[in-house]
Amino acid sequence: MKKIPVAVLGATGAVGQRFVQLLENHPWFEVVAVTGSDRSTNQKYGQVCRWILPEPMPKPVKEYLVLPSDPSLVEVPVVFSALPSEKARVIEPEFARAGSLVFSNASAYRYEPDVPILLPEVNPGHTGLLAAQRSNRQWSGAIVTNPNCTSTGMTITLKALQDTFGLRRVFAVSLQAVSGAGYPGVPSLDIMDNVIPFIGGEEEKVELEPRKMLGRLEETGIQPADFVISAHTNRVPVSDGHVVCLSIEMDQSADLPTVRRAIEDYLPPEVCAELPSTPKPVIIYRDEPDRPQPRLDRGTGDGMTTVVGRLRTDPLLHIKLVVLSHNTIRGAAGGSIYNAELLVQQGMLG
Amino acid sequence: MKKIPVAVLGATGAVGQRFVQLLENHPWFEVVAVTGSDRSTNQKYGQVCRWILPEPMPKPVKEYLVLPSDPSLVEVPVVFSALPSEKARVIEPEFARAGSLVFSNASAYRYEPDVPILLPEVNPGHTGLLAAQRSNRQWSGAIVTNPNCTSTGMTITLKALQDTFGLRRVFAVSLQAVSGAGYPGVPSLDIMDNVIPFIGGEEEKVELEPRKMLGRLEETGIQPADFVISAHTNRVPVSDGHVVCLSIEMDQSADLPTVRRAIEDYLPPEVCAELPSTPKPVIIYRDEPDRPQPRLDRGTGDGMTTVVGRLRTDPLLHIKLVVLSHNTIRGAAGGSIYNAELLVQQGMLG
Amino acid sequence: MKKIPVAVLGATGAVGQRFVQLLENHPWFEVVAVTGSDRSTNQKYGQVCRWILPEPMPKPVKEYLVLPSDPSLVEVPVVFSALPSEKARVIEPEFARAGSLVFSNASAYRYEPDVPILLPEVNPGHTGLLAAQRSNRQWSGAIVTNPNCTSTGMTITLKALQDTFGLRRVFAVSLQAVSGAGYPGVPSLDIMDNVIPFIGGEEEKVELEPRKMLGRLEETGIQPADFVISAHTNRVPVSDGHVVCLSIEMDQSADLPTVRRAIEDYLPPEVCAELPSTPKPVIIYRDEPDRPQPRLDRGTGDGMTTVVGRLRTDPLLHIKLVVLSHNTIRGAAGGSIYNAELLVQQGMLG
Amino acid sequence: MKKIPVAVLGATGAVGQRFVQLLENHPWFEVVAVTGSDRSTNQKYGQVCRWILPEPMPKPVKEYLVLPSDPSLVEVPVVFSALPSEKARVIEPEFARAGSLVFSNASAYRYEPDVPILLPEVNPGHTGLLAAQRSNRQWSGAIVTNPNCTSTGMTITLKALQDTFGLRRVFAVSLQAVSGAGYPGVPSLDIMDNVIPFIGGEEEKVELEPRKMLGRLEETGIQPADFVISAHTNRVPVSDGHVVCLSIEMDQSADLPTVRRAIEDYLPPEVCAELPSTPKPVIIYRDEPDRPQPRLDRGTGDGMTTVVGRLRTDPLLHIKLVVLSHNTIRGAAGGSIYNAELLVQQGMLG
Repeated sequence: MKKIPVAVLGATGAVGQRFVQLLENHPWFEVVAVTGSDRSTNQKYGQVCRWILPEPMPKPVKEYLVLPSDPSLVEVPVVFSALPSEKARVIEPEFARAGSLVFSNASAYRYEPDVPILLPEVNPGHTGLLAAQRSNRQWSGAIVTNPNCTSTGMTITLKALQDTFGLRRVFAVSLQAVSGAGYPGVPSLDIMDNVIPFIGGEEEKVELEPRKMLGRLEETGIQPADFVISAHTNRVPVSDGHVVCLSIEMDQSADLPTVRRAIEDYLPPEVCAELPSTPKPVIIYRDEPDRPQPRLDRGTGDGMTTVVGRLRTDPLLHIKLVVLSHNTIRGAAGGSIYNAELLVQQGMLG
Repeated sequence: MKKIPVAVLGATGAVGQRFVQLLENHPWFEVVAVTGSDRSTNQKYGQVCRWILPEPMPKPVKEYLVLPSDPSLVEVPVVFSALPSEKARVIEPEFARAGSLVFSNASAYRYEPDVPILLPEVNPGHTGLLAAQRSNRQWSGAIVTNPNCTSTGMTITLKALQDTFGLRRVFAVSLQAVSGAGYPGVPSLDIMDNVIPFIGGEEEKVELEPRKMLGRLEETGIQPADFVISAHTNRVPVSDGHVVCLSIEMDQSADLPTVRRAIEDYLPPEVCAELPSTPKPVIIYRDEPDRPQPRLDRGTGDGMTTVVGRLRTDPLLHIKLVVLSHNTIRGAAGGSIYNAELLVQQGMLG
Repeated sequence: MKKIPVAVLGATGAVGQRFVQLLENHPWFEVVAVTGSDRSTNQKYGQVCRWILPEPMPKPVKEYLVLPSDPSLVEVPVVFSALPSEKARVIEPEFARAGSLVFSNASAYRYEPDVPILLPEVNPGHTGLLAAQRSNRQWSGAIVTNPNCTSTGMTITLKALQDTFGLRRVFAVSLQAVSGAGYPGVPSLDIMDNVIPFIGGEEEKVELEPRKMLGRLEETGIQPADFVISAHTNRVPVSDGHVVCLSIEMDQSADLPTVRRAIEDYLPPEVCAELPSTPKPVIIYRDEPDRPQPRLDRGTGDGMTTVVGRLRTDPLLHIKLVVLSHNTIRGAAGGSIYNAELLVQQGMLG
Repeated sequence: MKKIPVAVLGATGAVGQRFVQLLENHPWFEVVAVTGSDRSTNQKYGQVCRWILPEPMPKPVKEYLVLPSDPSLVEVPVVFSALPSEKARVIEPEFARAGSLVFSNASAYRYEPDVPILLPEVNPGHTGLLAAQRSNRQWSGAIVTNPNCTSTGMTITLKALQDTFGLRRVFAVSLQAVSGAGYPGVPSLDIMDNVIPFIGGEEEKVELEPRKMLGRLEETGIQPADFVISAHTNRVPVSDGHVVCLSIEMDQSADLPTVRRAIEDYLPPEVCAELPSTPKPVIIYRDEPDRPQPRLDRGTGDGMTTVVGRLRTDPLLHIKLVVLSHNTIRGAAGGSIYNAELLVQQGMLG
């Protein structure tokens, strides 16, 4: 099969680098263009990009000239966007109008009624929104977003519970890695020997996004799932891997072994069961009393698996548990690539 | 005034060192003896104690011989206990029997019906239990405990709310410093670039202790306060200072300014308003959107003030906020010393 | 005594904040003006300055309007400069021309032949350069610099050895705290679980500055001391406190106890023995085999004492030892203030 | 080829775990037994071993019963020893006497005249010592040690220089990861926001071992290389990866490009050019001004490559450079396995 040519928008930043790294040797996609801001355009990616990943920079991309984020210069069917939200708001529609499928990490369009926030294991059917999106906006392409990195792991876990028991109330407290803030991101003086109990705009996202993803696609758009989330979000001195402590009330209570089985037995929908990025397994439950932990568990399933542990009874709601997910892989670049694979599988490309 | 002679039990450990350091130049108390395990007895404190505090070791104590924890060798009216819980269970009663007032950091006796868990600003009247304790146990001394380091700051904050609005449900998630685990405590390989979402026995303590301290002293003992707590406890790579994210439902809802005023205006009971360790102020509310933070706020009021911030509406209960308190000062040694001051003030000594 | 009015240039940055904090309640100086860049001028210091120190922001300064760094608006006899080097190059001479004594942390003028790099304990006589400086440059004020934060502690230690034994060759490897890079400075993703074996321009400074400070004031300027330094400089995940490993060859070898005595007995010159910032003691030698350490020793003497330890024989040169000094206090703001005190004492003010 | 059965002594510790992990799927060796201390014997490895690596525990080994370190119970031709030094001193000879080739990480026998410290790229011929060792000690097996983790990377780099230019004097200052101290090893309270400028016995090893490895095998044993090393060793808050700053005087000076070429072009001896663990390449030189760095470079060549950078002129000796090497892979378990491969290749097995 000839690979599908793709571009990475905002390729020199932290998430952009992750896209470039994860797409090396991808069986379906091939990076043919990278874009950046004025500071970096027309220079070689290998020279202008301050590479911050332990994995080496892929050879061919090193030699690419960084292009402006302009669809007339970058004509490809699939675009991965690592743009900051303000830029994404302007630039992503230009690519969608020009016919590209834009897979975006930015929050700019997540909350539009005709734009899906997509997790293949959770709501593959929400791509049904794209028809309306194209018709509303007169685009030949489309925008598909992936959720905030903290919403990701918890939504996959909640999906397993929603299917079996229904959901009513969720308390979520995150302990988030610094890579979630991009690069240069969090100054070391702010986070060394410290916790910052605040991340701008994050709690609002975490209280909103899971309900949209777990909602029902109706003719008029997504009907958000009918449960309530309360979130506290914290930054901690960890490089990669977001931990979320969850307390959950379900429609229907269940004993711990039954809940655990629902989590462990969770299978992704057929359509995304065998995509190149499908985590094996989607969710893993760790038995040890002190897991999941970022340093030990974030690499599970090449950073795509959601790791759950510490299931126990909650004195206020029904259950407590802890979720971990790799924020720059599963929660960002890897999640976008997985979304693109889903759309290829669904025949929505070209 | 002649100073009251005191001893520190378990003086070579992390909390024991904090006792020794905080008691240097105390206006009422003077350390006359330090005890330790077999490994260290009959050696000079300055030689056998691996001092881990930035403050220098007090000169006179340096020369003390470390004694066994035996009341026949250490006859003092006031004893501060930094013993581990198993040892505390055996040794603390021996000192109480011999007539000492034992101020204990251990959890061994916290849950006994005739032993108070004491915070001077919260429940000074609970020292009323000591009469029953002495009579039940035939002790001429007594045991007074201070709460778990995580319970401390949250209980002081909850007290301010309980007084004004009543309490129904509390959701608490901690981000705890490594010094809470003592020394050597948490191995660096376990916590560097990591979070451990588990601390043995901690969640049980946090769900129990605030209700006892906020309960009512009745003839038959303490009637625990009638609200429910759900706790998740986490270890994070921070040296000192425990952060607790709280969501709270009160008997009576109130708008945020009213709640804030209740917190800021909280005054300690008269009896503990002017003790040497009384924090000035008891609670401080920080306006910045990203405070309290351990590195910046743990030293407030010499580590004795409870620092609160981020008061906002909770979508499930009434309010959310964040509490910080210094775990080895306010939450351990400093809290015990403050308790001892209270009993002196109440005339319960000697 | 009426206090001398002083201004802090570049007061909103990391070193600028340290100046403001250390000058609170200074017995001789009173901050009457703070300056900043366009971004912050004409706003209240308390609002525009993102305060990053654990010590609270001094009350009165909070209300000051931040002024532009313009001597016509800020007429004071003493100016402390926390400006970045490029700005210092332009602005500091303007203040010197206008008559202020400028105490500068920047490297901009350190290497000019008529500008002293000053450490009161080491080379108080180098203020003799100011006469030439004023005459050369037609300034009524003057510029006095303090050394790079890594040079500071090692030069004080080398001074003690130079006086007694002479110096020939010095090998210096630093492990430097992130606060040395200012704020926001080092991104957390760069330094968490990491070492960066490079700090731009630092090795050149460390190889040059100690020789100038330990040199002789002659009619034609400073004759640098006749020894050679080789430096490696590294950034490590430490908030405050620079460690320097030194191997030293002296003109005249000596046994370890003699060397140690020379270090411990080092007395500052009479003129700076009783200034408000004179460290007590200037140098402290720690006996423990594993000291000095940043977390435990950086606060010694309120951050002004140089802490030395691990004196031992070097197989290539004569001796090895380790030096620690607080980089933002002794090595920056505190050092500048100490320099200003020296000039007041020398009668060089006004 | 049938795999050679091997045992791991001290398999539950940090280095022992690394052996078990690296030997999973090894093409030549198969772990058939693991040993441990009394605390763990006769229990399943998977239950008794507190696994601290991010890589999962290999399935089959999980089910092994941990055996005592007794050669009558563990009869295998190859034994990897992760024993602490005091135990190694007693137990390793028992296995050598019983006929096993013991590949040891311990320092217990490193300095014996008839025991080689072996790095395949550096001194493969030193296995010639084994004949004398067997005859001296009446062993049918033998002990082969690998160097201290800090000596490893620097010796490989020094070898490249020695071959071309000769060596005279070496200054070495290390910044070492906490995993070098084993598990639980360094308490987090000791190293968080800190540097410890002391590692017991380390400087002596670093000053001695490279000279033995770079020495000449003569009839009477190894003649250590004729140059002098001065070492300072430091612990820093890094999980894995030791950095060493080196200043080097060679017999024959050379310009920087020539030195760099000697490093980059270094080829391992033929006999170890194609072993399963041979790093590809043996040494890599990084051009960036701020590399090597532990977090970014320790994984190079699966943790077996020595990473060098920052070559520059030294004002005292000839050159300065920085070396990085993964301390638990290249500097411990991986190095031992590589040594065993060399002996198989040399036909010294069985």
